[in-house]
Amino acid sequence: MTSTSSSTIVPRGDGRAPDELREVRFTRGWLDHAEGSVLVEFGATRVLCAASFTQGVPRWRKGSGAGWVTAEYAMLPRSTNTRSDRESIKGRVGGRTHEISRLIGRSLRAVIDVGALGENTIVLDCDVLQADGGTRTAAITGAYVALADAVAWGQAQGAIAPGTVLTDSVAAVSVGIVGGQPVLDLPYVEDVTAETDMNVVVTGSGGFVEVQGTAERKPFERHELDELLDLAVAGTAKLTELQRAALAAPLPGR
Amino acid sequence: MTSTSSSTIVPRGDGRAPDELREVRFTRGWLDHAEGSVLVEFGATRVLCAASFTQGVPRWRKGSGAGWVTAEYAMLPRSTNTRSDRESIKGRVGGRTHEISRLIGRSLRAVIDVGALGENTIVLDCDVLQADGGTRTAAITGAYVALADAVAWGQAQGAIAPGTVLTDSVAAVSVGIVGGQPVLDLPYVEDVTAETDMNVVVTGSGGFVEVQGTAERKPFERHELDELLDLAVAGTAKLTELQRAALAAPLPGR
Amino acid sequence: MTSTSSSTIVPRGDGRAPDELREVRFTRGWLDHAEGSVLVEFGATRVLCAASFTQGVPRWRKGSGAGWVTAEYAMLPRSTNTRSDRESIKGRVGGRTHEISRLIGRSLRAVIDVGALGENTIVLDCDVLQADGGTRTAAITGAYVALADAVAWGQAQGAIAPGTVLTDSVAAVSVGIVGGQPVLDLPYVEDVTAETDMNVVVTGSGGFVEVQGTAERKPFERHELDELLDLAVAGTAKLTELQRAALAAPLPGR
Amino acid sequence: MTSTSSSTIVPRGDGRAPDELREVRFTRGWLDHAEGSVLVEFGATRVLCAASFTQGVPRWRKGSGAGWVTAEYAMLPRSTNTRSDRESIKGRVGGRTHEISRLIGRSLRAVIDVGALGENTIVLDCDVLQADGGTRTAAITGAYVALADAVAWGQAQGAIAPGTVLTDSVAAVSVGIVGGQPVLDLPYVEDVTAETDMNVVVTGSGGFVEVQGTAERKPFERHELDELLDLAVAGTAKLTELQRAALAAPLPGR
Amino acid sequence: MTSTSSSTIVPRGDGRAPDELREVRFTRGWLDHAEGSVLVEFGATRVLCAASFTQGVPRWRKGSGAGWVTAEYAMLPRSTNTRSDRESIKGRVGGRTHEISRLIGRSLRAVIDVGALGENTIVLDCDVLQADGGTRTAAITGAYVALADAVAWGQAQGAIAPGTVLTDSVAAVSVGIVGGQPVLDLPYVEDVTAETDMNVVVTGSGGFVEVQGTAERKPFERHELDELLDLAVAGTAKLTELQRAALAAPLPGR
Amino acid sequence: MTSTSSSTIVPRGDGRAPDELREVRFTRGWLDHAEGSVLVEFGATRVLCAASFTQGVPRWRKGSGAGWVTAEYAMLPRSTNTRSDRESIKGRVGGRTHEISRLIGRSLRAVIDVGALGENTIVLDCDVLQADGGTRTAAITGAYVALADAVAWGQAQGAIAPGTVLTDSVAAVSVGIVGGQPVLDLPYVEDVTAETDMNVVVTGSGGFVEVQGTAERKPFERHELDELLDLAVAGTAKLTELQRAALAAPLPGR
Repeated sequence: MTSTSSSTIVPRGDGRAPDELREVRFTRGWLDHAEGSVLVEFGATRVLCAASFTQGVPRWRKGSGAGWVTAEYAMLPRSTNTRSDRESIKGRVGGRTHEISRLIGRSLRAVIDVGALGENTIVLDCDVLQADGGTRTAAITGAYVALADAVAWGQAQGAIAPGTVLTDSVAAVSVGIVGGQPVLDLPYVEDVTAETDMNVVVTGSGGFVEVQGTAERKPFERHELDELLDLAVAGTAKLTELQRAALAAPLPGR
Repeated sequence: MTSTSSSTIVPRGDGRAPDELREVRFTRGWLDHAEGSVLVEFGATRVLCAASFTQGVPRWRKGSGAGWVTAEYAMLPRSTNTRSDRESIKGRVGGRTHEISRLIGRSLRAVIDVGALGENTIVLDCDVLQADGGTRTAAITGAYVALADAVAWGQAQGAIAPGTVLTDSVAAVSVGIVGGQPVLDLPYVEDVTAETDMNVVVTGSGGFVEVQGTAERKPFERHELDELLDLAVAGTAKLTELQRAALAAPLPGR
Repeated sequence: MTSTSSSTIVPRGDGRAPDELREVRFTRGWLDHAEGSVLVEFGATRVLCAASFTQGVPRWRKGSGAGWVTAEYAMLPRSTNTRSDRESIKGRVGGRTHEISRLIGRSLRAVIDVGALGENTIVLDCDVLQADGGTRTAAITGAYVALADAVAWGQAQGAIAPGTVLTDSVAAVSVGIVGGQPVLDLPYVEDVTAETDMNVVVTGSGGFVEVQGTAERKPFERHELDELLDLAVAGTAKLTELQRAALAAPLPGR
Repeated sequence: MTSTSSSTIVPRGDGRAPDELREVRFTRGWLDHAEGSVLVEFGATRVLCAASFTQGVPRWRKGSGAGWVTAEYAMLPRSTNTRSDRESIKGRVGGRTHEISRLIGRSLRAVIDVGALGENTIVLDCDVLQADGGTRTAAITGAYVALADAVAWGQAQGAIAPGTVLTDSVAAVSVGIVGGQPVLDLPYVEDVTAETDMNVVVTGSGGFVEVQGTAERKPFERHELDELLDLAVAGTAKLTELQRAALAAPLPGR
Repeated sequence: MTSTSSSTIVPRGDGRAPDELREVRFTRGWLDHAEGSVLVEFGATRVLCAASFTQGVPRWRKGSGAGWVTAEYAMLPRSTNTRSDRESIKGRVGGRTHEISRLIGRSLRAVIDVGALGENTIVLDCDVLQADGGTRTAAITGAYVALADAVAWGQAQGAIAPGTVLTDSVAAVSVGIVGGQPVLDLPYVEDVTAETDMNVVVTGSGGFVEVQGTAERKPFERHELDELLDLAVAGTAKLTELQRAALAAPLPGR
Repeated sequence: MTSTSSSTIVPRGDGRAPDELREVRFTRGWLDHAEGSVLVEFGATRVLCAASFTQGVPRWRKGSGAGWVTAEYAMLPRSTNTRSDRESIKGRVGGRTHEISRLIGRSLRAVIDVGALGENTIVLDCDVLQADGGTRTAAITGAYVALADAVAWGQAQGAIAPGTVLTDSVAAVSVGIVGGQPVLDLPYVEDVTAETDMNVVVTGSGGFVEVQGTAERKPFERHELDELLDLAVAGTAKLTELQRAALAAPLPGR
């Protein structure tokens, strides 16, 4: 299920070409109870995405006829190289966690017709079991698959009306400039040395949903931005294919 | 890796004999970075146990020459049948979470020689990925295996002095009275209907570390307590064997 | 109102026999406003138990026809030898507090017919004014008396229908192994040196509600557990008598 | 230990003259462990004041050679007519609690020579066991007695150098205008109907430490303010006498 | 818009007479959206007061026919000489903040007829942009002006019935004893050296709403208290004039 | 101080050309005490930026020889059309606040040589007094000016070594697609209807520091992204000029 390489000259630490994804794997139905669930892996990065369907919407949305999709992202304390304290014990959710949760939610809402969803809520929990770079992009990419399974479940149950609820698919990938070279899908070791780091969320039909680029060490130039966007567009197109293939298979246990 | 059955008359919902464990599985080395890690499964209950080793001890223990072992337990929001709110977002850790974290910590400290550990700390994170009853007993049983691997790692690294650090092993199991019959290792469906529910923590050499029995529906009699303790002693003896077998195998990737 | 001694050989630090309770005292009606209130003393341990009756139940229980009983335990900052920080100022309730509050609530719910209570709520506040070991068992034992007074008040007011609401009484005591000898009702000085510590909650008719035993220094054997249970059963039988005697007296000020 | 009445015309609900205190009682040594402790009663208002002595001062005061005195005030949930939620469970301390804690601390610091105290800290915990108006003034008046006992303890132990540490005594009383008439030491029933409510803190030698007057229903005039201050000065002089008498007695158990 | 001086002998650090206010300035309509807003300046102290009108009242007041006025006070982190941490980041509101918010609310409620306001709520936000002593008194004085504008807005909109809603005006000033001399309207440099510090809230017609005096260094005498009250009464009378003048001008942008 | 317009066809609600900034104003030295302070206005958006210089760095950075720059963003409750609750009272900082604070900090760190700053910390507080769209971009643009003043202050004081500390300037602007047309510097009314919304942070020499684009209603195309970037580059170039002009003027009061 790995992507294919291309004609680039300098190989990366893990032997990949600059425009090559890590091995990507979707294990659907990883949880018995969630209406949709996927263990998504981008190399050693593993994120468990669970979609929980409930009838009804938050108070501020009642009577609108429209549904709601939201997401929560978190990392297990030892998903990283060194252990981090739990946010539950610190009593507050950190800025990075907030930021990524909001990003995942916006990305999924870009491809769902909340009117067609009806007054139902789907919460996507994206819990990072192991982190090796790209956890937010893996989370978005996996959460879409879990969302698709939850919508299918809702329609099979009659809780969601028949018809198109998901107007497109959505996938995300990180790109960055490492050692002067634009590269795709950075593992942790590249991420910490990248001069520029960008996360790009793209729909299955190629529209941009989010572009978030940050100069980590020095400001970047317009042509670098352009190259990174090219890489990201190709990478998300590949992820879109992998999502389709994963969803085309029968769901284990249903 | 399942346990064997015995001569009991009334079969349970899942076909087990009253004194039969669910299928128990230990996957060591589930995480790449943790000094010890185990995905432990008691039937459909899955708990990821990560042992994090760090040099040094909390301030109140400095200069004592002795180490410290502590544990944190948590459930993923969709580990259960219906989604629960995250404790990080609620901004406080609930009573049940606190209670179980403390229980796991006490259980492990019962079998470690903190003097032999030296001024080092090992934190056990037990995160429930899927809950089907018995999460705290699976957590204790798995955490012991992760702890053993972390101690071995510490000794291999020279961070812990050679010699016996773990004075015994420890395992835990739930027992209860369901429909009038004492049974071992209750899944969720039995747990919610049990008249009495007990969690028992026992060392490899058969000593009791914790006995926590609760009358859920009606007070229980002394002879019932005795029968439950018998079941628990036999069940933990079986778990001890399974732990030994798991630890006897080479650790994947080391 | 003290208990009588028995024929044991090794006297304890305070001169009691191993199976002897400390002086136990119930002062009913300690508060002017609470529907039930008791200052309970187990030796130097003093717990103020207040039962607050309110009509109505929490939202999740509305329409059930059944009532609710819950409890909150806390210690004053200087109830102990050295001052502890207030949980209100720390902004979070600690694990031990949570654990004991839950234990008291479960113990009382074991002897109340919530259907007979009707859709009413009784909250038991157990505030430790002075701690000398056994605060949780004193709290349970005193809270039952406060609860009984609150139920009587509710029936006298017509807020609770006539009939049996309390199906039994409940009392609790600590037992432990100190210097190799099983003893009853441990003060602080024994508690900190106990090898094994157990809290046992028993109904007036002798059924077990909770058994919580912890090996503090070394695992305990089955025969030790049996001896501790014997001591606890005898001790709670004595406490039951004392509760009855206390409740048989007229309530001061009513 | 009650105060004497005077020649006033309109009797109050409880039969007192306008310038008459409620029965005031100090029970010193109410706690076994605190370096100073007093159960102070102003009629049905009961506040447990515990003084905790510790060597050392907060970080910001280290090396100053001077000590620190601070106070914390809180109410038990059922000290009042209807139960209030615990601040520990709400996770935050309310404004009123903060305000009164600060007032008590300032009042005590007005009569202590922190240089003579040396680098030691005394914390006064004032916990309202039963509230019937005037809890903050009872707390200040009782806390002074507990503080005096803690200072004496410190000097007896050699932890505080000999000499004058307390430069004066301090007491507090509430005054208010009820039904047009200025009255002293308001119980709850008067407090809720008062047009104006004032708390006055005065030293043993008659100097003002705090004057806090609030128009509850309509603004008050200068002459009313003057009459209230006269009442308060006479009331605190009486409380000063009672404090002296209480402290003149030997401390029980020492 | 400054106040005039008087015949006093010892000039203050900023050249003012003891009974002279700092330059006081009201800039109404400082915010485009708030129903009432004033930037009030007492010398270098600048407080932005915003009055927010909303229909409806808090739950506990529903159906009463009466409205509600409340206030919140806060300081920007760098309003002071040295930066303070944000209360939002500390996760809790400090005692001083609570205390002042409550004081402002009480002061404004003393001059509003909540029945005439109808079931509407006005929240006064008083944010200190720069602090140079007297922030709470500036806040009260400015908040009254913002409140008056919000009430006028409500009546112009028809959201408040015609008629008298504000029964009086209200203003506040600080007074204190500095170097033995009673002075009016203390800037920070005087505030930190004052022996006694008092905040006085007075209505336009001269009634006292709040009197809060604190001995900062040594207890104060009755005659000092009297002198401080005289100064405060004269000072608030002057502030009342300045409020009237400010409100007499047309509101910019309306 | 406004920017000049250009030859575009469809005028905007406020009459600006698509590539025209709102009136931008910097008021330096708005606070008396902060080492740098600016009230920055982008049209009706007003942000008070205060730079606080302190010697020393956070613990994790000690001994590195390098300094630290961080930022905190917040909105006053009534800066917006309808009042928002204070984060201090909610007890937690929201995700949006966290996100923007982090963005401002990263943007400023992109142009400061932390080695040249020495072991000193500069905190930038950006408090939104009035919000009309573009608060985060105004905050970054203003914070740079405050930072420059604080660095100058530090060098004048000798607290920072002479030499180049700021390696470049930095400014930010929002761009978006409104009614199909790319526009620069969106006020609130445009912001809420924008199909795509992007914030771009650019250095004085034209390098990108951050690019954050979000599809609000439908995914955007590559050519739209390119047009938005062109607008942002021209807009930040204009802001850079305005920053230079503002900093070229003498600082009031120094």
